[in-house]
Amino acid sequence: MSKGDETRQTVLDHAVEVARRVGLGGLTIGTLAEQTQLSKSGLFAHFRSKEALQIAVLEHAGEDFQSAVARPALKAPRGEPRLRELFERWLEWDSHPGGCPFIAASTEFDDQPGVVRDRLVSDLRDVFEMICTVFRSGVSEGQFRADANAEQFAQDFYGVILVCHHMTRLFGDPQAQSRARQSLDALLAGVRVDA
Amino acid sequence: MSKGDETRQTVLDHAVEVARRVGLGGLTIGTLAEQTQLSKSGLFAHFRSKEALQIAVLEHAGEDFQSAVARPALKAPRGEPRLRELFERWLEWDSHPGGCPFIAASTEFDDQPGVVRDRLVSDLRDVFEMICTVFRSGVSEGQFRADANAEQFAQDFYGVILVCHHMTRLFGDPQAQSRARQSLDALLAGVRVDA
Repeated sequence: MSKGDETRQTVLDHAVEVARRVGLGGLTIGTLAEQTQLSKSGLFAHFRSKEALQIAVLEHAGEDFQSAVARPALKAPRGEPRLRELFERWLEWDSHPGGCPFIAASTEFDDQPGVVRDRLVSDLRDVFEMICTVFRSGVSEGQFRADANAEQFAQDFYGVILVCHHMTRLFGDPQAQSRARQSLDALLAGVRVDA
Repeated sequence: MSKGDETRQTVLDHAVEVARRVGLGGLTIGTLAEQTQLSKSGLFAHFRSKEALQIAVLEHAGEDFQSAVARPALKAPRGEPRLRELFERWLEWDSHPGGCPFIAASTEFDDQPGVVRDRLVSDLRDVFEMICTVFRSGVSEGQFRADANAEQFAQDFYGVILVCHHMTRLFGDPQAQSRARQSLDALLAGVRVDA
């Protein structure tokens, strides 16, 4: 990695932490320069605009998600074991201080049209389709019913993650995760061929 | 209503609309004065501080939720009909432009300790306990299993609402609501005594 790449990585690591806590809107090149003790002009050279910085942060967080959650989960056996691995890694990723930056950005940008929202929606569609694909691996392995709807399952799966995020972060509810596991068990029980 | 009360209501109606779209953080006495064409000093007389304004907005939105969702739902017959009425009215309330202001505020304030977060958490706990209470009315009516866990049901119920909010607002997914109804059907099927 060149020195420029290293600086960029350091800044983005920090910026993702900020985005987890205060959202993408809380990120400005000015405050980020202060916090990382780099020059504002140096950061401008890296990111050019606030939107470019916000998109770079989404990309960086997306790479984190891919390496901590998606890719290792895809190494688990197809179908139910893969879904469970995805779920456990996702809860773990959301347990990071500040929680999932994509959930924070979702309510922040849902009414703000523009390049950042477009990128966020595109990333979340990819994630949603990944859940569908993992679910379908269970159908083709004969574990899940062929008439079970993958989009229905994906919406339910993501709902369990979202509500666990809310219960944990707002109420500090120590039982939110164990309830979320119960919810996943119930979802799986509803789609298994032996149901 | 006195003229002062009327002004306060008008300002809060507008402020709730703003909070639905850009969150509570986007509300300042300055911008609100501009948008409602009232004097900044007049608004200060009503709200005193940004935090007091944000809390007044949560209260106002909470009254909306009570009159549009909670109170009418509680008039439906106990148990499943009441839960279904609550659910339908909740989806309708969240379909308002900008979506539910409490969901927007949740990710905004989860990492910001203070009086606004405290109020938000207290309101959401009340809502969560209301779901539990409605669920328990179905247990005491003999519709739902006595060993079904009310907190588990409430977390699942709120997850269905949350994910529907996300799928509708980010993806504009026209099927999100019908999937949410399927999810509720599945939750209810899992707790009925005749299951």
